[in-house]
Amino acid sequence: MGSCAQVVPWVVTLWPDARAASTTTSPTRAGPRTPDAQEASASAGPVRASLPLAARRIGDLGPSQPQRFPKKTERQAKMQGKEEDVNLGANKFPERQPIGTAAQSDEKDYKEPPPAPLFEPGELKSWSFYRAGIAEFVATFLFLYITILTVMGVVSSKTKCSTVGIQGIAWAFGGMIFALVYCTAGISGGHINPAVTFGLFLARKLSLTRALYYIVMQCLGAICGAGVVKGFKKSIYMANGGGANFVNPGYTKGDGLGAEIIGTFVLVYTVMSATDAKRNARDSHVPILAPLPIGFAVFLVHLATIPITGTGINPARSLGAAIIYNRDHAWNDQASSSMGALFFQWIFWVGPFIGAALAAIYHQVVIRAIPFKSRR
Amino acid sequence: MGSCAQVVPWVVTLWPDARAASTTTSPTRAGPRTPDAQEASASAGPVRASLPLAARRIGDLGPSQPQRFPKKTERQAKMQGKEEDVNLGANKFPERQPIGTAAQSDEKDYKEPPPAPLFEPGELKSWSFYRAGIAEFVATFLFLYITILTVMGVVSSKTKCSTVGIQGIAWAFGGMIFALVYCTAGISGGHINPAVTFGLFLARKLSLTRALYYIVMQCLGAICGAGVVKGFKKSIYMANGGGANFVNPGYTKGDGLGAEIIGTFVLVYTVMSATDAKRNARDSHVPILAPLPIGFAVFLVHLATIPITGTGINPARSLGAAIIYNRDHAWNDQASSSMGALFFQWIFWVGPFIGAALAAIYHQVVIRAIPFKSRR
Amino acid sequence: MGSCAQVVPWVVTLWPDARAASTTTSPTRAGPRTPDAQEASASAGPVRASLPLAARRIGDLGPSQPQRFPKKTERQAKMQGKEEDVNLGANKFPERQPIGTAAQSDEKDYKEPPPAPLFEPGELKSWSFYRAGIAEFVATFLFLYITILTVMGVVSSKTKCSTVGIQGIAWAFGGMIFALVYCTAGISGGHINPAVTFGLFLARKLSLTRALYYIVMQCLGAICGAGVVKGFKKSIYMANGGGANFVNPGYTKGDGLGAEIIGTFVLVYTVMSATDAKRNARDSHVPILAPLPIGFAVFLVHLATIPITGTGINPARSLGAAIIYNRDHAWNDQASSSMGALFFQWIFWVGPFIGAALAAIYHQVVIRAIPFKSRR
Amino acid sequence: MGSCAQVVPWVVTLWPDARAASTTTSPTRAGPRTPDAQEASASAGPVRASLPLAARRIGDLGPSQPQRFPKKTERQAKMQGKEEDVNLGANKFPERQPIGTAAQSDEKDYKEPPPAPLFEPGELKSWSFYRAGIAEFVATFLFLYITILTVMGVVSSKTKCSTVGIQGIAWAFGGMIFALVYCTAGISGGHINPAVTFGLFLARKLSLTRALYYIVMQCLGAICGAGVVKGFKKSIYMANGGGANFVNPGYTKGDGLGAEIIGTFVLVYTVMSATDAKRNARDSHVPILAPLPIGFAVFLVHLATIPITGTGINPARSLGAAIIYNRDHAWNDQASSSMGALFFQWIFWVGPFIGAALAAIYHQVVIRAIPFKSRR
Repeated sequence: MGSCAQVVPWVVTLWPDARAASTTTSPTRAGPRTPDAQEASASAGPVRASLPLAARRIGDLGPSQPQRFPKKTERQAKMQGKEEDVNLGANKFPERQPIGTAAQSDEKDYKEPPPAPLFEPGELKSWSFYRAGIAEFVATFLFLYITILTVMGVVSSKTKCSTVGIQGIAWAFGGMIFALVYCTAGISGGHINPAVTFGLFLARKLSLTRALYYIVMQCLGAICGAGVVKGFKKSIYMANGGGANFVNPGYTKGDGLGAEIIGTFVLVYTVMSATDAKRNARDSHVPILAPLPIGFAVFLVHLATIPITGTGINPARSLGAAIIYNRDHAWNDQASSSMGALFFQWIFWVGPFIGAALAAIYHQVVIRAIPFKSRR
Repeated sequence: MGSCAQVVPWVVTLWPDARAASTTTSPTRAGPRTPDAQEASASAGPVRASLPLAARRIGDLGPSQPQRFPKKTERQAKMQGKEEDVNLGANKFPERQPIGTAAQSDEKDYKEPPPAPLFEPGELKSWSFYRAGIAEFVATFLFLYITILTVMGVVSSKTKCSTVGIQGIAWAFGGMIFALVYCTAGISGGHINPAVTFGLFLARKLSLTRALYYIVMQCLGAICGAGVVKGFKKSIYMANGGGANFVNPGYTKGDGLGAEIIGTFVLVYTVMSATDAKRNARDSHVPILAPLPIGFAVFLVHLATIPITGTGINPARSLGAAIIYNRDHAWNDQASSSMGALFFQWIFWVGPFIGAALAAIYHQVVIRAIPFKSRR
Repeated sequence: MGSCAQVVPWVVTLWPDARAASTTTSPTRAGPRTPDAQEASASAGPVRASLPLAARRIGDLGPSQPQRFPKKTERQAKMQGKEEDVNLGANKFPERQPIGTAAQSDEKDYKEPPPAPLFEPGELKSWSFYRAGIAEFVATFLFLYITILTVMGVVSSKTKCSTVGIQGIAWAFGGMIFALVYCTAGISGGHINPAVTFGLFLARKLSLTRALYYIVMQCLGAICGAGVVKGFKKSIYMANGGGANFVNPGYTKGDGLGAEIIGTFVLVYTVMSATDAKRNARDSHVPILAPLPIGFAVFLVHLATIPITGTGINPARSLGAAIIYNRDHAWNDQASSSMGALFFQWIFWVGPFIGAALAAIYHQVVIRAIPFKSRR
Repeated sequence: MGSCAQVVPWVVTLWPDARAASTTTSPTRAGPRTPDAQEASASAGPVRASLPLAARRIGDLGPSQPQRFPKKTERQAKMQGKEEDVNLGANKFPERQPIGTAAQSDEKDYKEPPPAPLFEPGELKSWSFYRAGIAEFVATFLFLYITILTVMGVVSSKTKCSTVGIQGIAWAFGGMIFALVYCTAGISGGHINPAVTFGLFLARKLSLTRALYYIVMQCLGAICGAGVVKGFKKSIYMANGGGANFVNPGYTKGDGLGAEIIGTFVLVYTVMSATDAKRNARDSHVPILAPLPIGFAVFLVHLATIPITGTGINPARSLGAAIIYNRDHAWNDQASSSMGALFFQWIFWVGPFIGAALAAIYHQVVIRAIPFKSRR
């Protein structure tokens, strides 16, 4: 069972649309679905996922509740064939848990949500779909507003000591992601970043329709946010690079691309870890703390790569600042500080998307071993 | 079903006092209320809201408990007509959850608390009403004391490097809000800010009596806190602007007003998100973490807008510093650093109140879609 | 029912030892106690306090468990006479909850632990008593080691910009308190500060024996911690004030005393809020987050008052640094930077103790209204 | 019962492999084990440990569940002989709880997991064993990449004010540990540090096989991470010490060794406290917050000891930077800034391992009193 040969089934598993439509793709989505059955399974799934402990407690207690026995049987079946498909041999020994910090259950007490379909026509008629887009727009607007304003305050000052400093800029980016993910996670998922949306789309956590819609709203929000900052003090804004990302002199395009790739990997890997179904089942309160490490990931990448590219790892943030900055900017300007703000802009789309894809693959293939598990 | 046309019912729903007094305003407040019935419904409501998981667990378990069956029926009814009124069409497809970080239940497992009345005579006789005001006074006193002292330490030093720096000022404001909200949330709600009180009043989370009482206590606390700082070193205090907010030279009044509006929007939106009944039902431990993002919101706004206005977003904080600073201040003083400390003071009341109102409307109308839901 | 007249009963309630020994002091400690009864009540109390939700869930469910009915009756009794004694009049209206961030239950679902006795001979024979002292010693040792080393790194550098800065010093103090309270809270309570021990003693959370023992161990740990730092670089240590607290030139002794009082008030008020029995019942996970706001309180006070006294708010920290610094120090040295390191040392004992006492009184009398409640 | 004489049984208890193989080493591993029995006991253990509250709730409720009665009996037995073996005399008085912040239960409601065997052949055949190594590799890679890049950004700048500063370096180290422990704790335990692995190995939390495997993967990851940073800007990297640890001029080797020992003690003590089985039983959500104090511990040690050694406390981090830095470095170079980067490298292995061992002994012997308890 070589690992490489397993990747193809993974692609097939996560991307069932590539197969014939009538094929059974996952246990919970099997067979021709009547709308009623679809509603029942879909509404049962997330509810159970979101309330794992309570559901299990209640399910195990009531002796007369009808769903108890099938559930028990299902659990026993899982305990027997449990995780065997991810062992490399005939490993009958339960794995010893190398306790670091988190408790780890050997029993699989979570249910992987089924992959999102590529297109889900129903969501286009739902108010919550549009509300989610508005929430992404507002969050990205506020994100750019606060962060670019902080950047302006620092770079326009002669002595950095009388400002919040470069570290303050890193806090602004990371802190805003923390606060905004906390606020909008329940509404839209709190992506605020096309790379995060792309990574979660690759992991089939949302439909293609929704992913494209989110990315458009994020970019619009970012443009508006940067525009408001420019509106405050256009002269300062234009004289100081407008918070746009570019590869700093002394670094090659390859350096900038690499920094964006690894930086986005750190962010999207943290997002994938925080929103892991397995983790949510184990630590039912993970969602509450999740925004904090996600915000810290953004903060840390800024600490490291501000000297290289000003740190993008968010195509909407890079696009918003670049468009607002370059609209009035002389295109012939050769000053090193502004050169390539739009020219090198492809780096801040390609880099984050590669990083997000790598993080999604790493998390799904290596950490979760999904291709090895779901082949049955 | 246009969204604009829905706002009027929202106003009516949240502000039932505007209608005839005899109209049924909400399910739990219907009909002529005997004191006993009022006590029963009111004490059941918050208890259930504050212990959602435990209550549901217990309620579902006991087969002989009398309230089980009506509850089940109510829940089934909700599952059938669930959220339909917020769909834009005949959406029968359950919305797929765009999982970002927080679990989201399709079932409405929370109960919106009824809007607070404008006047609630009973609370004036309650010790906890006065205790809440004392707590707001003490919290705002400590808030001003720590933050203005930190500001004095930074601005009175010749070299900013030997102080905690501007970033340290931002930490002082944000960190104090974190610690004080943590400490006083259980006593008074932990507003410590007239704009927050105003936003929560607009969302009908507290009565007008209480809102005005809180605002008065906050302003008194702020004045005392700034006064103690001045008492330490009057000369330093007066020579360095006293921590008062004013629009910095180079920015227009409109810039300052805009910065205050958006900054307060960030804060109050975070507060509304953290105290959302829906969120509290979903993540029953949200209250524990809530002070952290609220504190971070304050920190972040300070990072961004200290160069513009010194960052108010808290009318009590602005008023306290301005009153203490200007009492001894020559009114004819034209120095740019002190100019307008009291003159532009209206900005630090109008701006935060507009921002808080926008955040309350955004949260109630867009995020929670309350007008669309509660019309029935 | 004036509030002043209520303070005396409070003193009597919390300090029953002042009354005749045979008087009934609290419901759970009434009557002559056999060792068996004492063991039963004492072991039942904390267990219930530490597992409030689980206990209540289990207790309410089992229909044949013997302790269910008395508990139900007790709860009903509480619901009838609930909180009436703290109302200022014949308030029959349940107080509307001014929701800020924390859910608040009108029902009293917690049990105030009985006040600790002044002397508890049994604990002197317990290994956990000595272990708690060792934990306090080690924690205070590590606290002084990390913080004084950080101070030395900053003050011994010519340019503060190439150090972690004054803000870094504040982080060192606050962060160490966060980490050490997290680590030792389960062993000794995690005081690491004689003022905190004093405040909790006033609130009768620990016996006088234990309080004195903790304070001695904290002072010994602090002296050793400062001694190790001096051992690293004695010349740098002695040339830079040794991290000792003193009132900076330009401030009066009264300023320093006031700064210590209010600073310790902020800290001890946060500690009292975090360890409140009512809060622990309501938010059963408070202990997990509690170290964070406590650490932040220390951080914030340092941000504000480092320019005034270097910030003590911890007599052990002040004593340790002062003793190690002054042992080799010329007593006639008149340099302003070292003047009064030991001379003004009383400020750093009297100030924190006054602040801790004020916080204990504020929390018990105003916030918890204990004298108004427990008179019956 | 002197404490010194007890250490030998502790060694025997935790290191049963030193005894004859056929001896009964712990209750759950007694007797000749059939594979079935082994699986049953081992899978029951961690499940119970990871879901302590839920398990206990369910177990106590169902009156017909077969395992209820033995469990009750076991608990009663514990309550009678509870903790007596750690008392220093005939202490029949239950210890009064010196409440600081965390609730503390007198009843022993947790089960110490049995010590990990030295060699566990089964885990070598498990995919999760190799996955854990990959996760350690990737985490250490990202750790070195972000931190060394941050160091380079600071040290290569002429004026520290236009960088994130030394404090930013401390944040990078601490923050990365926070985020990476959060992400990988569920996969490999999230050590990211040979000293942590060594400390947890001494406490018998993982097998020798796994410990060595982790350390190798951590070192490989660190070398790769430092290599990527060097790849970005080789000239800057080589001119600025490459982020390698060395004892700064003015400090002796003994100073550096001492700083490493105490610094690692702070870190490993925090790790041991956060992952304590007793704590996990008491506060079932500790794993969620645990990464935060662990990250803060790293941050704080960096605040204090960057001026002395640049702060290692992580042999993989020191090795990775030293190897990448010295590969191209002239071995005869006598410049003080680079001198001894490899020469003094032993300090950064011996120091952290001594500190980790002291922390493990302190936690197991003093805090948990395991030798005093498990002798029976």
